[in-house]
Amino acid sequence: MAQKIIPDIVIGRLPIYLRSLTRLLEQGRQVTSSQELGERLGISAAQIRKDLSQFGEFGKQGTGYNIEFLTKKIQEILKVDRVWDVAVVGAGDVGHAVAYYGGFHQRGFRIAQIFDNDPKKIGTKINEITVTDIANMEEAIHKAGIRVAMLTVPAGVAQEVTDTLVEAGVKAILNYAPVNLVVPQGVRVQYIDPAVHLQNMTYYLD
Amino acid sequence: MAQKIIPDIVIGRLPIYLRSLTRLLEQGRQVTSSQELGERLGISAAQIRKDLSQFGEFGKQGTGYNIEFLTKKIQEILKVDRVWDVAVVGAGDVGHAVAYYGGFHQRGFRIAQIFDNDPKKIGTKINEITVTDIANMEEAIHKAGIRVAMLTVPAGVAQEVTDTLVEAGVKAILNYAPVNLVVPQGVRVQYIDPAVHLQNMTYYLD
Repeated sequence: MAQKIIPDIVIGRLPIYLRSLTRLLEQGRQVTSSQELGERLGISAAQIRKDLSQFGEFGKQGTGYNIEFLTKKIQEILKVDRVWDVAVVGAGDVGHAVAYYGGFHQRGFRIAQIFDNDPKKIGTKINEITVTDIANMEEAIHKAGIRVAMLTVPAGVAQEVTDTLVEAGVKAILNYAPVNLVVPQGVRVQYIDPAVHLQNMTYYLD
Repeated sequence: MAQKIIPDIVIGRLPIYLRSLTRLLEQGRQVTSSQELGERLGISAAQIRKDLSQFGEFGKQGTGYNIEFLTKKIQEILKVDRVWDVAVVGAGDVGHAVAYYGGFHQRGFRIAQIFDNDPKKIGTKINEITVTDIANMEEAIHKAGIRVAMLTVPAGVAQEVTDTLVEAGVKAILNYAPVNLVVPQGVRVQYIDPAVHLQNMTYYLD
């Protein structure tokens, strides 16, 4: 049977639903509704029901969603019912911040390797992970079978480092460098650029 | 004359165009085309032409866009032809990283104030900005007329801090806390949550 193609925009909302469900669980809640989720997220209840219905029946009309069950299902769909090893490239301020961020593990990720080209940083430890020479990156990532990377290098070298990551077998790159990356088919890139978000909002200011 | 309503999704692409144009300028280029921009950004040339045409005529068929002119126009549209003062709330790892990030100024932003509630941090300096007690935040932001904030506090207090920011007159919040915020009409929030981006990509991994 051919697998159903789910639009990217629907997949993009699932992590947001998951985050909200996790928070409800932490608050001791057991059941929620598309209405409640919608109010918390600023998304219509109908949209949430439609999105979730793409993956099966997760709740009954009138009784709402069991939060723990729905959480597990979305974790399975997003494949974060396991923990992915992540390589961080760039041991600067942002690299440090992500290496010390405590929230990754319960959301499916573990920073496993950190690389830099600065001799002063190589060999030092960041949150118990030794910074490795970027010259050894391709081999180290390939050997460890790592497929997810976070890129926190300067814009000028981001494409070059990306090409090496792709060679090493990385298929998903979260790019903090303020530059668009070109990658082959089958490799995904997402971008974090605070200035882009801020510029998006200033348009609406008087 | 009524102002034309431009879809949010179009506004959302303008900072990406701007970033790419700035990079071309840095590389010494003077003219580009919707085809070239499209290839760099993974967006169709037709989409780029359509987006830009919402704001006027920026290039002629066949001769392409003058990069400097288009850059200035997009800066004006996004209101980053000026520099916005930004308040950072939370002097942790992420707060540090954004305070030291050198790329904001040329893109329209200047970190002007940093707040925290930790007595060990209050009074210290981060990139020459003194960390101020969060108890004085509302007054300080109001007095300075700051309307843009970056939120790097723990998830559990993010909503409470947001309410104070809104009271102080902030209209645009870039939220690094992994939680959805509820804000009144007229206040915009954008989110940076690396785990959400990573989860969005693991769906597509085998």
